[in-house]
Amino acid sequence: MQKAHYHVLGIGNAIVDVLWQTDDDFLVRHGLAKGSMTLIEAEAAERLYADMGEAIESSGGSVANSMAGLASLGARGCYVGKVRDDQLGQIFRHDIRAIGVDFPTAPAIAGPPTARCLVLVTPDAQRTMCTYLGASTALGPEDVDEALVAAAEITYLEGYLWDPPRAKEAFLKAMRAAHAAGRRVALSLSDRFCVKRYREEFLELVDNHVDILFANEHEAMALFQVEDFAAAVAALNGRVPIAALTRSAAGSTVLSDGETTVVAAERLGQVIDTTGAGDLYAAGFLYGLTHGRQAADCGRIASLAAAEAISHLGARPRRNLKQLVAQFR
Amino acid sequence: MQKAHYHVLGIGNAIVDVLWQTDDDFLVRHGLAKGSMTLIEAEAAERLYADMGEAIESSGGSVANSMAGLASLGARGCYVGKVRDDQLGQIFRHDIRAIGVDFPTAPAIAGPPTARCLVLVTPDAQRTMCTYLGASTALGPEDVDEALVAAAEITYLEGYLWDPPRAKEAFLKAMRAAHAAGRRVALSLSDRFCVKRYREEFLELVDNHVDILFANEHEAMALFQVEDFAAAVAALNGRVPIAALTRSAAGSTVLSDGETTVVAAERLGQVIDTTGAGDLYAAGFLYGLTHGRQAADCGRIASLAAAEAISHLGARPRRNLKQLVAQFR
Repeated sequence: MQKAHYHVLGIGNAIVDVLWQTDDDFLVRHGLAKGSMTLIEAEAAERLYADMGEAIESSGGSVANSMAGLASLGARGCYVGKVRDDQLGQIFRHDIRAIGVDFPTAPAIAGPPTARCLVLVTPDAQRTMCTYLGASTALGPEDVDEALVAAAEITYLEGYLWDPPRAKEAFLKAMRAAHAAGRRVALSLSDRFCVKRYREEFLELVDNHVDILFANEHEAMALFQVEDFAAAVAALNGRVPIAALTRSAAGSTVLSDGETTVVAAERLGQVIDTTGAGDLYAAGFLYGLTHGRQAADCGRIASLAAAEAISHLGARPRRNLKQLVAQFR
Repeated sequence: MQKAHYHVLGIGNAIVDVLWQTDDDFLVRHGLAKGSMTLIEAEAAERLYADMGEAIESSGGSVANSMAGLASLGARGCYVGKVRDDQLGQIFRHDIRAIGVDFPTAPAIAGPPTARCLVLVTPDAQRTMCTYLGASTALGPEDVDEALVAAAEITYLEGYLWDPPRAKEAFLKAMRAAHAAGRRVALSLSDRFCVKRYREEFLELVDNHVDILFANEHEAMALFQVEDFAAAVAALNGRVPIAALTRSAAGSTVLSDGETTVVAAERLGQVIDTTGAGDLYAAGFLYGLTHGRQAADCGRIASLAAAEAISHLGARPRRNLKQLVAQFR
């Protein structure tokens, strides 16, 4: 097999985050489930935004955050996702390219504006997200270049892609292209409500198409409709070559070719905002996998990358993760 | 005289900040004078932005930052400044209203996009700014409602308004309206290069029209073309009813009706980013003046507000300044 040009090619909903630190009352008042991601339409987004305080904007999107983490670790990456040719789209495009990730997807020149995610950060550092998908619904199979997919060791996909119907087609095309080229496919289950929406289909993916699975404990339990984490681990064991299951401060459990390893969470100062924790965990793990590390070691790099993400407001790394990992090992 | 509805009405260039933490080499490579504000055209802004790393966006603008500080202190405020009806303009409008500041200015529906300021934050916490004025050049005297100006105890203007020609007319109209209503006028000198551009005119303003002057030491020295701070203080003494002159970590000197008071700088943890320090100093000072405090006491509130601004990335307060001031006094 030809040496891969990219360590990871990621496909996801291209989103600009609007971050606001608020309190639990705000979530209650708006009927939002803490820690979840809710899809909202343009009008609902306007209403919620109007009720929010002064915010800061930064590029986001689950897989895009992971790609930022991978770049910061020194990996070569390519990102596929759809923005519009508007100001938020320009910001997204600038940011992902500025961190050294290839971004070949042409912006939409008509249709809804660039996707926004209203991220509500509560004093317990939890984040609750409301996403207006906007232009990211315009992502389609035509945006997936099979040659680029074939040029990546791992193609990394987010479960969120099953929300916009044509993005799902792009997902499936990329998955097939990766396997046809003898490459591996990684999937993040994204969100427990997302898992509930597409449970049967995600199970089929896990059983037949996914080589590396990322999920937090809630998503893993939702996938198998079980009430405790051990049952989810047991259900997953042997069903997928590699699974990395995160449990916030309790660390993560890595299943790899029949072996189970529990990896401790890392901590870098105060926990400010958990936005991006799972995305950066995946970044660290995929970095390890594409750089010859054993699964447990991948989990340790992943924990460190996640620890950096939660030590500040915003999902993407502020410190150079390559230096951080070198310093801690 | 009628009781004022607003404590402060502020007029300024309405700008969205694009903040990036970088190093001194970047400034050298782009020929930028550290700590200054440089005006740049759209094309130069594109070029500089393309060379910048991943950034965060937040509402800015010197007087708008001061209005955010005043609102956080509990004062009633009104802000006049021009954005376009684009995404960055919506963000600016949302943010200033979300913090409780009235914002009556209609957005431009044609012409250049909302103003952006590329803010380069170096490891010494200094900020160097490159501003593309965009839609803020469309501010004109028609945006100044004399009744609103008359309804404010103090009208606060930034020297930066002399850059866009029609904004200067808005400035002069507001100044006349304030004085005609028996109100006071405050002016920030904004930037030492701005002072150099309009030195004669600013001197005339200070001598004949300004009741409260804000300047940092470099701006004050540039105004009188002197080489040391004491000479600037001597030159200002008696020329303006109140002057508050800031000197970074060395605190500030307040001249008020013939009395000179030196106020110590405050410090709240590590200094991360000095963006907004002067703006928040002015906010604290104007809060004090409109709430019956003596000038020296105004300086102490000002120092505390500035200390909060420099303790994090971004110009606007993250903590509730009213609570902060109550806690420290």
